[in-house]
Amino acid sequence: MARIVMKFGGTSVADIDRIRNVARHVKREVDCGHEVAVVVSAMAGKTNELVELTRAASPMHDAREYDAIVASGELVSAGLLAIVLQSMGVDARSWQGWQIPVKTDNAHGAARIAEINGERLIERFGIGQVAVIAGFQGVAPDNRVSTLGRGGSDTSAVAIAAAVNADRCDIYTDVDGVYTTDPRIEPKATRLAKVSFEEMLEMASLGAKVLQVRSVELAMVHGVRTFVRSSFDEPYAPGMDDFDNPPGTLICDEEEIVEKQNVTGIAYTRDEAQISLRRVQDRPGVSAAIFGPLADAGINVDMIVQNVSGDGKFTDMTFTIPSGDVDKALLALEKIKDEVGYEAVQSETGLVKVSVIGIGMRSHAGVAAIAFRALAEKGINIRAITTSEIKISILIDGPYCELAVRTLHDVYGLDKL
Amino acid sequence: MARIVMKFGGTSVADIDRIRNVARHVKREVDCGHEVAVVVSAMAGKTNELVELTRAASPMHDAREYDAIVASGELVSAGLLAIVLQSMGVDARSWQGWQIPVKTDNAHGAARIAEINGERLIERFGIGQVAVIAGFQGVAPDNRVSTLGRGGSDTSAVAIAAAVNADRCDIYTDVDGVYTTDPRIEPKATRLAKVSFEEMLEMASLGAKVLQVRSVELAMVHGVRTFVRSSFDEPYAPGMDDFDNPPGTLICDEEEIVEKQNVTGIAYTRDEAQISLRRVQDRPGVSAAIFGPLADAGINVDMIVQNVSGDGKFTDMTFTIPSGDVDKALLALEKIKDEVGYEAVQSETGLVKVSVIGIGMRSHAGVAAIAFRALAEKGINIRAITTSEIKISILIDGPYCELAVRTLHDVYGLDKL
Repeated sequence: MARIVMKFGGTSVADIDRIRNVARHVKREVDCGHEVAVVVSAMAGKTNELVELTRAASPMHDAREYDAIVASGELVSAGLLAIVLQSMGVDARSWQGWQIPVKTDNAHGAARIAEINGERLIERFGIGQVAVIAGFQGVAPDNRVSTLGRGGSDTSAVAIAAAVNADRCDIYTDVDGVYTTDPRIEPKATRLAKVSFEEMLEMASLGAKVLQVRSVELAMVHGVRTFVRSSFDEPYAPGMDDFDNPPGTLICDEEEIVEKQNVTGIAYTRDEAQISLRRVQDRPGVSAAIFGPLADAGINVDMIVQNVSGDGKFTDMTFTIPSGDVDKALLALEKIKDEVGYEAVQSETGLVKVSVIGIGMRSHAGVAAIAFRALAEKGINIRAITTSEIKISILIDGPYCELAVRTLHDVYGLDKL
Repeated sequence: MARIVMKFGGTSVADIDRIRNVARHVKREVDCGHEVAVVVSAMAGKTNELVELTRAASPMHDAREYDAIVASGELVSAGLLAIVLQSMGVDARSWQGWQIPVKTDNAHGAARIAEINGERLIERFGIGQVAVIAGFQGVAPDNRVSTLGRGGSDTSAVAIAAAVNADRCDIYTDVDGVYTTDPRIEPKATRLAKVSFEEMLEMASLGAKVLQVRSVELAMVHGVRTFVRSSFDEPYAPGMDDFDNPPGTLICDEEEIVEKQNVTGIAYTRDEAQISLRRVQDRPGVSAAIFGPLADAGINVDMIVQNVSGDGKFTDMTFTIPSGDVDKALLALEKIKDEVGYEAVQSETGLVKVSVIGIGMRSHAGVAAIAFRALAEKGINIRAITTSEIKISILIDGPYCELAVRTLHDVYGLDKL
């Protein structure tokens, strides 16, 4: 017997037929003798519909009212799933955020979970009742409904799993796991059986489609083993009652990953822009003088590379931002030209960042060199490089994106995992 | 300065434009310096949509889940109205049933309000904040959301008005008040400026379209002056800032009605069926033996008339029920034939009950006689009569409905009120 939290997104509960399919997944786990809590999103499209209504009411709206309105979608899907489960003979009840309660901070619209008391849920587990929980929401210190921001149901699920000390948090989604790279670019991409929390966080483009970044951070902090699997699976297919067998990816502590790969995935981000400041005066505080105003302008700076210029007095500063922010960034930089004292600013849009990720590279030298050589052999020019302990990111020209991803996927043997 | 509860139904908040109109009505009262709470229904059609979803999930569903789902509609309209009010510079916040709290009993799906603590709302009145309250809902002793049954928002409004000791509860609806009779039948029908709680309760067909019966009962018990007016009025039309002037009907204690009319309204109910049991044994307990099984079968018996037969041993028993329940009633009566010992059962459908209502008839004899004579003059046959202190109900053949209503409306001079 295990204690399992299952999470289903909006597409999985889009209509009554799909809710029935979700209920069959839940019943399977109950039939195995597991204690089960289910976290659901609103029926697909409902949250957008509610958001549109609040915008139509007033473009500048009170976040507390926004939350009260938008959180109502999950109440419906949770109630419906409880009804369907009951009709299948499974004892179930729905829980609204304030009933558990899921206590959050006061940051309405993008609240963070402060505390969940799992006692009431655990009590119901004891009588064999399934808890169907409205995701995405909680109650703020002002006793008003709060929401966790878009994709918040993943976070709800992981937080509930931590609160009830669950053995596993199963995230049912429209993909059947995390792949070594985007299968639309490299058909030979393979599904990872296990991936560490750290790798998952670094996977950005690969991971974000599967699981909200905040929920992965939360899972890492609380050590919640999180299993990503497809909600389109036939609920009672062979092997579905076996803990380790269903297709999917387990996101877990790296301790649990016995065979560590040097490299586990190749991620990419399109529409990057590169901005270079030429001959910046090389003095203390110059970085702050540049990146402070950019941050104030709401621009998310990603890679930062600083080269020493020849004479030691000046340096070149290169960084990347989303292509859409270039005009805003240039305007901000223009304003600080005198203070920073750079000679020229250059910008280029439509670039791509390709990243090689793997916890194994910590203990293996030469992982980066393999990437550089492989790209060079294909004639792909490297514009900038940044590295972390478990990731190497390389900035290249946009048209080479697919070639670079496939080349790196191949050179690290990811199709053979 | 007065303290006012305003209630708007689903049609009045059907879309953002109509919600803006509602907000203008609210702003007008606030601008007059009044303390205001607003109770809203779900946007038109939303409750039906949610009810349909619960039925699709399972025809036999848990009433607690039904409540959790169906009550979500009011959360949306309340939040939207709060946002629109804020955008007009009116301080406002939405309240969900559990936040006030509106405590109900455990009868999920048709809960009765047990207790409302008005303190939090009154506190907010003190800082000039409008309370926008999700109608139709409360929280049951099990800490789960409950609903008050269809039309429950009227009841919410009156109960809130009682809890905050409001000077008046304004029910905005799609008619501009209570009329002396149905204007579709008698174009000369006039709007009543005032009507007593008791009369309103007796008006059934006239009143029920305007205000839920339960809310009138509640208003009577707590002495809540309830003003029915049209939500389609231009919010800032002349006279709208004057307590007594806007068109509408005040439902109040009869003490407040100085000029009491003998008769204030002519109501009617179509599709009545008459059932007569011939030669029932006239012994104690026979009524219980007949009407008990009918009640158990869920049949709502209305008029009951018992005539003495010639020999004193047998009686005729006549009663009315909705036409749609005749088959069910005949089946129930067949089962108790031996026990009751009646000789024959006769039934007739498609009848009409016409009622003459007025608190003045208490102190005026001869009101009934006027009705009987007027109907006789038109050749309308009376099948049965029942009377209460303030109502005379007359059962007639269906085709005479309009003629009877117009005749009675005329004979009591209701077009000249």
